[in-house]
Amino acid sequence: MFKDATLLEVEDAMHRSCNAFKLFKKTSLATRAALMRTIAKELEALGDHVIELAMRETHLPEGRLKNERARTMHQLVSYANACERGDWLNVSMCSASPDRVPPRPDIRKTMTPLGPVVVFGSSNFPFAYSTAGGDTACALAAGCTVVLKAHPAHPETSECVAQAIAKALEIHRLPKDVFIHLHGASFSVGEALVKNQHTKAVGFTGSYSGGMALFNWAQQRKEPIPVFAEMGSVNPVYLFNEKLSADAVTVAQQYADSITLGVGQFCTNPGILIGIDSPALHRFIEELASRMNAIPEGKMLHDGIAKAYEQRSSRAMTQKGVKVMTDPGRKPSAKSCSALLLSVTASSFLENSILHEEVFGPCSLLVICNDASEMKRVAESLEGQLTSSVIATEGELKQHQELLSIIQCKCGRIIFNGVPTGVEVCQAMQHGGPFPATTDSRFTSVGPDGIRRFARPISYQNFPDELLPDELKSANPLGINRTLE
Amino acid sequence: MFKDATLLEVEDAMHRSCNAFKLFKKTSLATRAALMRTIAKELEALGDHVIELAMRETHLPEGRLKNERARTMHQLVSYANACERGDWLNVSMCSASPDRVPPRPDIRKTMTPLGPVVVFGSSNFPFAYSTAGGDTACALAAGCTVVLKAHPAHPETSECVAQAIAKALEIHRLPKDVFIHLHGASFSVGEALVKNQHTKAVGFTGSYSGGMALFNWAQQRKEPIPVFAEMGSVNPVYLFNEKLSADAVTVAQQYADSITLGVGQFCTNPGILIGIDSPALHRFIEELASRMNAIPEGKMLHDGIAKAYEQRSSRAMTQKGVKVMTDPGRKPSAKSCSALLLSVTASSFLENSILHEEVFGPCSLLVICNDASEMKRVAESLEGQLTSSVIATEGELKQHQELLSIIQCKCGRIIFNGVPTGVEVCQAMQHGGPFPATTDSRFTSVGPDGIRRFARPISYQNFPDELLPDELKSANPLGINRTLE
Repeated sequence: MFKDATLLEVEDAMHRSCNAFKLFKKTSLATRAALMRTIAKELEALGDHVIELAMRETHLPEGRLKNERARTMHQLVSYANACERGDWLNVSMCSASPDRVPPRPDIRKTMTPLGPVVVFGSSNFPFAYSTAGGDTACALAAGCTVVLKAHPAHPETSECVAQAIAKALEIHRLPKDVFIHLHGASFSVGEALVKNQHTKAVGFTGSYSGGMALFNWAQQRKEPIPVFAEMGSVNPVYLFNEKLSADAVTVAQQYADSITLGVGQFCTNPGILIGIDSPALHRFIEELASRMNAIPEGKMLHDGIAKAYEQRSSRAMTQKGVKVMTDPGRKPSAKSCSALLLSVTASSFLENSILHEEVFGPCSLLVICNDASEMKRVAESLEGQLTSSVIATEGELKQHQELLSIIQCKCGRIIFNGVPTGVEVCQAMQHGGPFPATTDSRFTSVGPDGIRRFARPISYQNFPDELLPDELKSANPLGINRTLE
Repeated sequence: MFKDATLLEVEDAMHRSCNAFKLFKKTSLATRAALMRTIAKELEALGDHVIELAMRETHLPEGRLKNERARTMHQLVSYANACERGDWLNVSMCSASPDRVPPRPDIRKTMTPLGPVVVFGSSNFPFAYSTAGGDTACALAAGCTVVLKAHPAHPETSECVAQAIAKALEIHRLPKDVFIHLHGASFSVGEALVKNQHTKAVGFTGSYSGGMALFNWAQQRKEPIPVFAEMGSVNPVYLFNEKLSADAVTVAQQYADSITLGVGQFCTNPGILIGIDSPALHRFIEELASRMNAIPEGKMLHDGIAKAYEQRSSRAMTQKGVKVMTDPGRKPSAKSCSALLLSVTASSFLENSILHEEVFGPCSLLVICNDASEMKRVAESLEGQLTSSVIATEGELKQHQELLSIIQCKCGRIIFNGVPTGVEVCQAMQHGGPFPATTDSRFTSVGPDGIRRFARPISYQNFPDELLPDELKSANPLGINRTLE
């Protein structure tokens, strides 16, 4: 239905984005914030039509999609507020000391946008991490223009949302090329976008192979550019027995829900559970398996994801020492995907790197350790993660400080007695983590701090006050927080 | 005199650094700050001995080296103060809303150190960007351990400073492997350090070719890591005629001094001056040339740099349309380097990329434009820069807002009526710029914000207060600035 952009169309889009950037980068924080709030309103004004489109294209249920649209609007509005508040500019001012030897100049620092940003729509968040999603909102707040490549699994939804953004730009009389929407099912469109000379940063949420392709293209350019690829992870959960003894049923229900939420299609899906061999653990496994058996089968986002789930979960199941704990009759198929709980001993897990890989979908692997020291070895063996969770009493948490120290080096968010799914959109959220969870652990893709991904610091030395950006003017007309020295 | 570290020694050093990191990352901000202040004291306690070593190894004069040591101590102390103040942790806290649907968890965000950092000593700053220099100070403040590769042009100075750091670690009873000092004249030592699995970040100040070698090795790793390479630039200076008419003599003297400061061996050395053809410009050129002729010849840091200066300046001189404005009898040689002012028309400059390249040393190229619009084309043609300077009246600055807009996209610091040399060590300083000035324009290598290079955000969700890092505890025992939501 939609044709891939040709190489000429990509070149033209980036050129137009670059021209629009020259104007858009000069807009005030208030203008950008107003634009973002209008995009939120226009997204709402799309009504049920866009929800129906998304239901058809993604197989996600109405309730989930309505919630996701509300979340997307919340992102736009809360990042707009943060944009205007201006904390992300990290403004600092050093006043002149003309009498010092040598004299100290007047120096003032703020942030300046990087330039045109290429954003790749994600398959699993047709609203919140696609067309008008978090990356687009952050880039616009920073003063960057956006060229969005629609995800080929929901091109109509994407097209519809893009029209809402175009309308918002029109309302604010901003250049239409501030946001450009392209289609591209083929890798070559993505490659051309990332390698284009006008592209200054890339935002992506998706698979490891997809993210790494973009990252490698970006680093091979004559001018390397930052790539913010959030590539998911297995989000390990460390289970302690005292807590399990006390709360097996509650924890089992929480995790059965978390593992199967959205047919397991979340980057924060808990893919590995790690416990210490004990009657409490075995009771928990039983509880968890029986609750997972009770969860109805679900249809995945598209056939490609369903097929990959079938293949990867089958591969995991046939590894040495792996047992299937859920009902073995409920095997995943391309048509419908059932939840799967596997178990394996830590010693088998430690010697088999295949078991460390993410199975994208409602599948979790329980790793059974002989003792706490084996649990530490498992923790050490894991790669970088978006999240790690600890299910424990406070006493158990205190007793396992060394494990906690290992976990801190391996993830972006640590959760105590909770589930990793359900990423709160707030300032304190870190959604990112050491490689391979993301290609840049120093930034977040959820929360207003995500704006910082698309800007860089710039200092003005001895500049006339009236020619400084507003946030640096002596009178502080924007009233933002500034560090004075 | 000093042997290169073997590959086994590199492996051993990184392994030890990784073990020391496990302890050092847990130290309080106060402990790290105290260590840094003691390193400053021990650097001072090295007395004249280390100055004499550095004079012999670098050919830099006593006064400059004493100032540079004082600057290095100032860096250590001011970054220690910033480390303790804790603004760099960017702490934010989102309190729980248990009644919301779904309930909002308690989330608190701070920064956690990346891990062992490899720092490469620079040739042109034997103190301030070498052993106990800015990168080391920032890494220690962030809680990272450091493996330092001494620059082969001043190994004895480096060894001596390393002993001061070792003494400071001993005084604070910290593991000696928090700072490890290695020698390596061969590229293979650098390659092994960057590619080692324990290395989590790299700091470098030096040439484009050196920085890019490190960057490429780092991106080709199984786990790519950040490289903060500051690779210098030509630091363009835009000259306007009204200002030149009024102040030709003052500006000429400022720039003769800036171009020849430290025999031109600064990354902020003004290598390209851009003016508009007029009697005022020609008078300025004359003034500048005669002042540069009056500057005594100097000896460069080492033979390699002197030879490169001779070759690169000779190559620039022989390009089409290039004229030598300084006394042509004062040609650079390997023994002593004299200052060199060249000129060329903008049209010749625009068609010859060789003239856009940095000539590291006391050489500057004056690009003569026909008018302001040609000046904009020259500005557009330049690559990313550490700094750009504008010599103009306020009225001229106001008239050339489009030029200013181009300049903003191309540099990390804009200077009005001043020289780019003399980088103030303060919070508001941005020493960094778009590629190829640095490999990561989003960070600075001067000023306490440089600490942020070596840390990443981490969130704690629903964590017991007493197990949180101090900066996140509800009572705010460290008394730092925090954003509450």
